[in-house]
Amino acid sequence: MAPGKKGILERLNAGEVVIGDGGFVFALEKRGYVKAGPWTPEAAAEYPEAVRQLHREFLRAGANVMQTFTFYASDDKLENRGNKLSFTGAQINEAACDLARQVANEGDALVAGGVCQTPSYLSCKSEADVKAIFKKQLDVFVKKNVDFLIAEYFEHVEEAVWAVEVLKETGKPVAACLCIGPEGDMHGVSPGECAVRLVKAGAQIVGVNCHFDPMTCVKAVKLMKEGVEKAGLKAHYMVQPLAYHTPDCNCQGFIDLPEFPFGLEPRILTRWDMHKYAREAYNVGIRFIGGCCGFEPYHIRAVAEELAAERGIMPAGSEKHGMWGAGLEMHTKPWVRARARRDYWENLKPASGRPLCPSLATPDSWGVTKGHADLMQQKEATSKDQLKQLFDRSKSH
Amino acid sequence: MAPGKKGILERLNAGEVVIGDGGFVFALEKRGYVKAGPWTPEAAAEYPEAVRQLHREFLRAGANVMQTFTFYASDDKLENRGNKLSFTGAQINEAACDLARQVANEGDALVAGGVCQTPSYLSCKSEADVKAIFKKQLDVFVKKNVDFLIAEYFEHVEEAVWAVEVLKETGKPVAACLCIGPEGDMHGVSPGECAVRLVKAGAQIVGVNCHFDPMTCVKAVKLMKEGVEKAGLKAHYMVQPLAYHTPDCNCQGFIDLPEFPFGLEPRILTRWDMHKYAREAYNVGIRFIGGCCGFEPYHIRAVAEELAAERGIMPAGSEKHGMWGAGLEMHTKPWVRARARRDYWENLKPASGRPLCPSLATPDSWGVTKGHADLMQQKEATSKDQLKQLFDRSKSH
Amino acid sequence: MAPGKKGILERLNAGEVVIGDGGFVFALEKRGYVKAGPWTPEAAAEYPEAVRQLHREFLRAGANVMQTFTFYASDDKLENRGNKLSFTGAQINEAACDLARQVANEGDALVAGGVCQTPSYLSCKSEADVKAIFKKQLDVFVKKNVDFLIAEYFEHVEEAVWAVEVLKETGKPVAACLCIGPEGDMHGVSPGECAVRLVKAGAQIVGVNCHFDPMTCVKAVKLMKEGVEKAGLKAHYMVQPLAYHTPDCNCQGFIDLPEFPFGLEPRILTRWDMHKYAREAYNVGIRFIGGCCGFEPYHIRAVAEELAAERGIMPAGSEKHGMWGAGLEMHTKPWVRARARRDYWENLKPASGRPLCPSLATPDSWGVTKGHADLMQQKEATSKDQLKQLFDRSKSH
Amino acid sequence: MAPGKKGILERLNAGEVVIGDGGFVFALEKRGYVKAGPWTPEAAAEYPEAVRQLHREFLRAGANVMQTFTFYASDDKLENRGNKLSFTGAQINEAACDLARQVANEGDALVAGGVCQTPSYLSCKSEADVKAIFKKQLDVFVKKNVDFLIAEYFEHVEEAVWAVEVLKETGKPVAACLCIGPEGDMHGVSPGECAVRLVKAGAQIVGVNCHFDPMTCVKAVKLMKEGVEKAGLKAHYMVQPLAYHTPDCNCQGFIDLPEFPFGLEPRILTRWDMHKYAREAYNVGIRFIGGCCGFEPYHIRAVAEELAAERGIMPAGSEKHGMWGAGLEMHTKPWVRARARRDYWENLKPASGRPLCPSLATPDSWGVTKGHADLMQQKEATSKDQLKQLFDRSKSH
Repeated sequence: MAPGKKGILERLNAGEVVIGDGGFVFALEKRGYVKAGPWTPEAAAEYPEAVRQLHREFLRAGANVMQTFTFYASDDKLENRGNKLSFTGAQINEAACDLARQVANEGDALVAGGVCQTPSYLSCKSEADVKAIFKKQLDVFVKKNVDFLIAEYFEHVEEAVWAVEVLKETGKPVAACLCIGPEGDMHGVSPGECAVRLVKAGAQIVGVNCHFDPMTCVKAVKLMKEGVEKAGLKAHYMVQPLAYHTPDCNCQGFIDLPEFPFGLEPRILTRWDMHKYAREAYNVGIRFIGGCCGFEPYHIRAVAEELAAERGIMPAGSEKHGMWGAGLEMHTKPWVRARARRDYWENLKPASGRPLCPSLATPDSWGVTKGHADLMQQKEATSKDQLKQLFDRSKSH
Repeated sequence: MAPGKKGILERLNAGEVVIGDGGFVFALEKRGYVKAGPWTPEAAAEYPEAVRQLHREFLRAGANVMQTFTFYASDDKLENRGNKLSFTGAQINEAACDLARQVANEGDALVAGGVCQTPSYLSCKSEADVKAIFKKQLDVFVKKNVDFLIAEYFEHVEEAVWAVEVLKETGKPVAACLCIGPEGDMHGVSPGECAVRLVKAGAQIVGVNCHFDPMTCVKAVKLMKEGVEKAGLKAHYMVQPLAYHTPDCNCQGFIDLPEFPFGLEPRILTRWDMHKYAREAYNVGIRFIGGCCGFEPYHIRAVAEELAAERGIMPAGSEKHGMWGAGLEMHTKPWVRARARRDYWENLKPASGRPLCPSLATPDSWGVTKGHADLMQQKEATSKDQLKQLFDRSKSH
Repeated sequence: MAPGKKGILERLNAGEVVIGDGGFVFALEKRGYVKAGPWTPEAAAEYPEAVRQLHREFLRAGANVMQTFTFYASDDKLENRGNKLSFTGAQINEAACDLARQVANEGDALVAGGVCQTPSYLSCKSEADVKAIFKKQLDVFVKKNVDFLIAEYFEHVEEAVWAVEVLKETGKPVAACLCIGPEGDMHGVSPGECAVRLVKAGAQIVGVNCHFDPMTCVKAVKLMKEGVEKAGLKAHYMVQPLAYHTPDCNCQGFIDLPEFPFGLEPRILTRWDMHKYAREAYNVGIRFIGGCCGFEPYHIRAVAEELAAERGIMPAGSEKHGMWGAGLEMHTKPWVRARARRDYWENLKPASGRPLCPSLATPDSWGVTKGHADLMQQKEATSKDQLKQLFDRSKSH
Repeated sequence: MAPGKKGILERLNAGEVVIGDGGFVFALEKRGYVKAGPWTPEAAAEYPEAVRQLHREFLRAGANVMQTFTFYASDDKLENRGNKLSFTGAQINEAACDLARQVANEGDALVAGGVCQTPSYLSCKSEADVKAIFKKQLDVFVKKNVDFLIAEYFEHVEEAVWAVEVLKETGKPVAACLCIGPEGDMHGVSPGECAVRLVKAGAQIVGVNCHFDPMTCVKAVKLMKEGVEKAGLKAHYMVQPLAYHTPDCNCQGFIDLPEFPFGLEPRILTRWDMHKYAREAYNVGIRFIGGCCGFEPYHIRAVAEELAAERGIMPAGSEKHGMWGAGLEMHTKPWVRARARRDYWENLKPASGRPLCPSLATPDSWGVTKGHADLMQQKEATSKDQLKQLFDRSKSH
């Protein structure tokens, strides 16, 4: 850590708001450096200037945490992705650490080394095997001396607990995030119980990331907090949700939405949605507030702007942003000037420009998931049937 | 021009498809380097690495043209923007040329110097005054030896003709784009007549950019082409539309939509929409096909992928993209794997996740514009009235 | 005609507003007396009390015209319908005349005998054959001494002209309505030209009915009026549109919408939509204003209420209706009381309660129709393909 | 009861499906005989032929129960309604009984006398006062010898229990329906507990009516059934929901929706929605299945058609209805013929034709109700604020 910088726990213990960064795999997919499907981060080694630039944009947007771009960078995942890569897992992980550190040093940010769920766990490998996978990434983080560690994007609390146990051995602060909603993990463990297990395993910060929209994630973290407090334990809380509206998700999140991952555009949150999210997260008692898939730099900036008073600072990027549309004050058209005010944007119900499209979808997931919300009663059977038919046919060959 | 590279007219005369780049001001606004409202490009001088990175992404996406990031960089506009800048107009324009050239040299791209409509024209300055403004930017383009010139984003064909007349003096190829739809320019001159005037003024390439969605822009260019051919003239055609669905626009384009510019997210086109756009533009006979506001690198890549057979080349960025969702073929969930096929994405009607929002909006523009489409009969009076009231009140103080 | 009652032409010549009735086949289908598909009016003979009751409701709603329930009651159509009926065509037509006369006598209404397009014309029978069909229904109207005649629901102006020529022989006033929109009849004859032909054939009143929503129909009649006036002719104008919103129709009207006829509910106009329709029709110069399919008594009442000042009378049914929601003034909940005002209902954008449904559909019609509106660019290919496939398959057997 | 007819309990005890009728006040409002706001049934005395006709239509649609048109016909309510009526409460109630009996005798239907919640209870009158109100209506029912009694449309289980206690004194079978959803009554008593109290008070049939859409009501009755069974009690179950989609309601039902009562059209269920409802109600174990506000005769017919096999009979009205669109089989257009099949209508997602309208609304109710669903997070503050402001202003005068 740069001399004079406060660590993550120092900040949270002092009651400070810590702004996280946004989602690298989705942002870099749109920029041309990540392949949707595998979602692996080899770009850290292949195209460092592109990854560095994105780090810089999040820093400028107000982020206090540079997560190493090491999502799905475990060896078992990298091997799984189908194509041969020109770099080893260690090279990718090291490059990602260097990029995060370089940009973190340019501002008030910490470096967080990240691990996430593994194919090994999903294919029922042993605890020892799975832990060995984490250990390998961790060796890089220790060598590169990241400031703290995040175990994130776990659908099963059991695997997350294993990750925390491994990460704890480093002595560095550990945060743990599940990609679950208020219904709990994929084994039906409630958010409150999940959080308790993670805290007991040694995580100082717990929360959720990815899979659901901001308000749903905040609600899940609220349940975590209630569980931890009810158990007489203590923790800090974090949230890094999607930047997509997903009221129609089932418990497995946006993966099951028909729009995932190439038709999610109409669901993208506006900056004004982010103001509401940041406020709600803050009100619930969450102090580490960032983003995951779909978050672009301007989304993080909106979070930082909403909490500027609490943080005592505006993000550098606000140099190029008038609050609540103030940049329109000098527009030549009076009706555009009239949009330069807070209540206009707070109350706008933006149109999609897509009159042939519905507002909600029905998640795919052929009989695998638990009971859905009532809205799903009006299920569009056709498209799912078609897919299922297709799938059944493909299996029979 | 790098030795061995074909010029813009050589390419078009040979019947090649030329891919344009995407929209810099909107993309860089989201990245934190452009202020919405003024929309000026001082970042070319202030944050060259951010601008360079975006150039690279468009090059990688398949773009054959690097437009200098000089939109609204005329002196009168820069002065108008309210805030003092640390750089002169000349410095900004020169920096933009250097960045475009540097990246163009990294691949098969040309540099296009761009001018656009001026506050001077809108405030009724003389032809000589307006032309002097263009001349000043042009001096930089000549000094930096750009490969060709684009006069774009003109609402009035008269000003565009003046611009073409100035640009022609350089001897370089000249393209001219209006930001109009099928209803014509703000004086009611039809697209066909506009195109004829531009060709007669010396433009070798004519078309439209910005203000409307792809299909609307293609239709406007089609009308231009019909006008030019009917007049017995010859030209090449280009189109660089918005990446937003705007079926509900009036003749002044997306500026008047209530969502402009901070609530446009639900309108963003998917990559699959871009395939349809690229095909339609090609079928109409347009050979210079790019994008404007809202276009991110993956949108341009989709255009390049759709026309890969015609161009005989896939964009470099397709290294990280499976056509038609092929990247999902190895997904662990069968119903996600089932999305790895063309007809799935071609037929998807993506949901907005916003059940409280409508699909179309009613443009603002208090009695200024010509007759709207029928859909507007159901106008939501309230919100406009409120704005108008607010505006009237503000005027009375 | 009852002594003292003014005839239809007397009223229109005096500049009075004449209110038509609503749609019998659709209303009686919902009540259980008409079969969707054949749409024939045998209920006039089978269930006279049900038909009489509907007449009474329209009379009470303000209608000045009782159209005989003789839609599709030509002999060729009745034979075509598949099932044997217990009554002859003459019996049905006579019963319908008696019911209309009985209720007309209860108030200020006239009886109009109606004929509509025939299967004979569509199967290319001769002019003489088609005219013979009209003549047969007409004999009943003459015998029962209806007050005037309406030839309505013609897709082809040619057949309508033949109908007018037959009806004129009776010496009674003749009105003629096509079921066309602004694009003209099925042979592409423009509304203006259609109207000219009908007037020249002897129709004193011309207009459109069915197939399109109110605003579209009003626009088509406006074009008729312009055509007639340009030709130096004179006529009165009538309009009897659908009570369904159909902005997404092609030129063949609501038949081609995927929702026709059993899923049209979300498109039903509110009473407030009817106020706008009545005002617009009046402003355009139409003085015979009624409804067709989908119009229930309360829709006609809304038309009569909107034009109460112009007509100098409120409809009897307004005894049970507070204008602009006034009936809510004494509601126990204050927020429901707050709805008892005109601007609330005028500006309400009613939700569908169907988040999985789109707002617009794409008409079916496999390549038969002329170019569609731009909105249709986003066509949902799947469902149409499925239908087409089904159809092609059915043809191959 | 007509000799040879089985009573309501005989039928239900034998496991038969009993079809209820639809909603009189809403249907007759559209026909011009009921005033929205007061919703009182004086038309039974004023316009008996209109009320009789509606009874006949429901009978023809398959209804086994003719409910006397005595909704809101308690003396305290009739006095409350603002306008003087030409008939006394007793006259209205007697006329309603005669009409129901007359039509019931024309088919296989029973007459049910109905009482509903009273202004007296809401204004905190004593149990004795409230019971006296019920008693007065009951005297008519006894005199007219209805077949059984229904206490329906109660928001508070306490008042419903009082009603049941009074009705029980007649010795006739008693059904009791609350107008609640799965969240329970207005005091927060759960559906299960409500049902237990009603059964203990003597109701042999319990269920819900009005206020929510079919699927929501079925779910509430399911909870009632579970509560009754868990308490070791026995009962029969009934459901008579709205014919409007209301996924966006709060616990007070459709009254709070901004569209109530004059903008509900886009929410009207199709006949195909009714098939799903009937099947679901049957599957849950409900055997008395009918409708409330919004149900037209064709909606009841759809319920009867769906359960035709279980009942062993098709409704008389199906004479004019082809199942699953069969009536379209002979349509001249092949793409319309292609709609004559079950899966077409089962899977259709009907468009609203209203692109400027949202799919869901936010209920009004200024801070009075319990926590809403998540969807409400995106609340449109403006319109409510306007209403509230208006209301506050009105209070201050």
